[in-house]
Amino acid sequence: MKAPIDFYFDFSSPYGYVASEKIEGLAGRHGRGVVWHPMLLGVVFKQTGAMPLTQVPLKGDYSRRDMARTARFHGVGFRLPSTFPIATQAPARIVLWARDRDAALVPKIIHALYRAFFVDDVDISSADAAAAVAASCGADGASARAAVDDSSMKEALKRENEQAMSRGVFGSPFIIVDDEPFWGVDHLEQVDRWLATGGW
Amino acid sequence: MKAPIDFYFDFSSPYGYVASEKIEGLAGRHGRGVVWHPMLLGVVFKQTGAMPLTQVPLKGDYSRRDMARTARFHGVGFRLPSTFPIATQAPARIVLWARDRDAALVPKIIHALYRAFFVDDVDISSADAAAAVAASCGADGASARAAVDDSSMKEALKRENEQAMSRGVFGSPFIIVDDEPFWGVDHLEQVDRWLATGGW
Repeated sequence: MKAPIDFYFDFSSPYGYVASEKIEGLAGRHGRGVVWHPMLLGVVFKQTGAMPLTQVPLKGDYSRRDMARTARFHGVGFRLPSTFPIATQAPARIVLWARDRDAALVPKIIHALYRAFFVDDVDISSADAAAAVAASCGADGASARAAVDDSSMKEALKRENEQAMSRGVFGSPFIIVDDEPFWGVDHLEQVDRWLATGGW
Repeated sequence: MKAPIDFYFDFSSPYGYVASEKIEGLAGRHGRGVVWHPMLLGVVFKQTGAMPLTQVPLKGDYSRRDMARTARFHGVGFRLPSTFPIATQAPARIVLWARDRDAALVPKIIHALYRAFFVDDVDISSADAAAAVAASCGADGASARAAVDDSSMKEALKRENEQAMSRGVFGSPFIIVDDEPFWGVDHLEQVDRWLATGGW
């Protein structure tokens, strides 16, 4: 059994969303699973001095256009949410909570949360909204909601962020294949070839 | 005859270099030519607040690795120059000078300058070194060298930068196909599909 690949993402990242829709199929074609790592880009941006793309002069207009175009390029439904970017502690903590309880639920909840935000324009920064999405996947809604304010889940997310940064993660999506790092949905082609060949 | 595509680049940009090696073949397969636009990323970065990639915390190590990996992915020779990044006024002005005199020389000089920097580790920020590379392509070396300090070439480069920014260019490589903008060597696949289909 080959090692799974690591997929780091922030729930507010459009490119993370698009990649999340493709990564399991891509990994699966090479006999690999996916380990999902929700994280907070805002924490990383404090280190790198980066800003949300849409707020950068010149890059802002381009990035709004490119997000939609890249989603269409990959055949993934997308519209820029009316509130964007958002804080993503609530959905990230719910994912970590689910991971401790029912690992099979994790990808379901991630896809449902991402689609709620980037297709149905649900503001998943709201703990109530994020918990409702988790409940729609079969999780216990009240427990999911409580997890958002649970200090152990807050700590778990902090640890995830620290571990991500210690592995050099600074953007979303960020994919690590056998210690080889790839940043960006635009690198899926390189990830695919790396999985096929073991490097070049 | 279809309109040529516009290729904006900075001579200090590794991703611009890799794309410069692929763009004519890609455009040619769709019956398109390439208009080359040397520019100064430093001028744009003042507007966007960006820094050279290798100087950004966390991103620096990754970008050095990714530059070499991306070059190999595309089958392009590459090593990170011992002096990097560099100021690129000299090679950019020589290209603009050649454009006014012998358009056929322009792509030859661009490829030779880029390869001198990213393959042979020649510091092309030096006016003498850049002029020598132009001379090796058949340009008059003394005139090329003089162009670097020529006030009309300084003005021409300023105009190129201003025109680039007015078209929304903020990085290298930056490719515009019939008013559709694409940033980054990672977007060559999208450029290819856009040229084939006229958009999606």
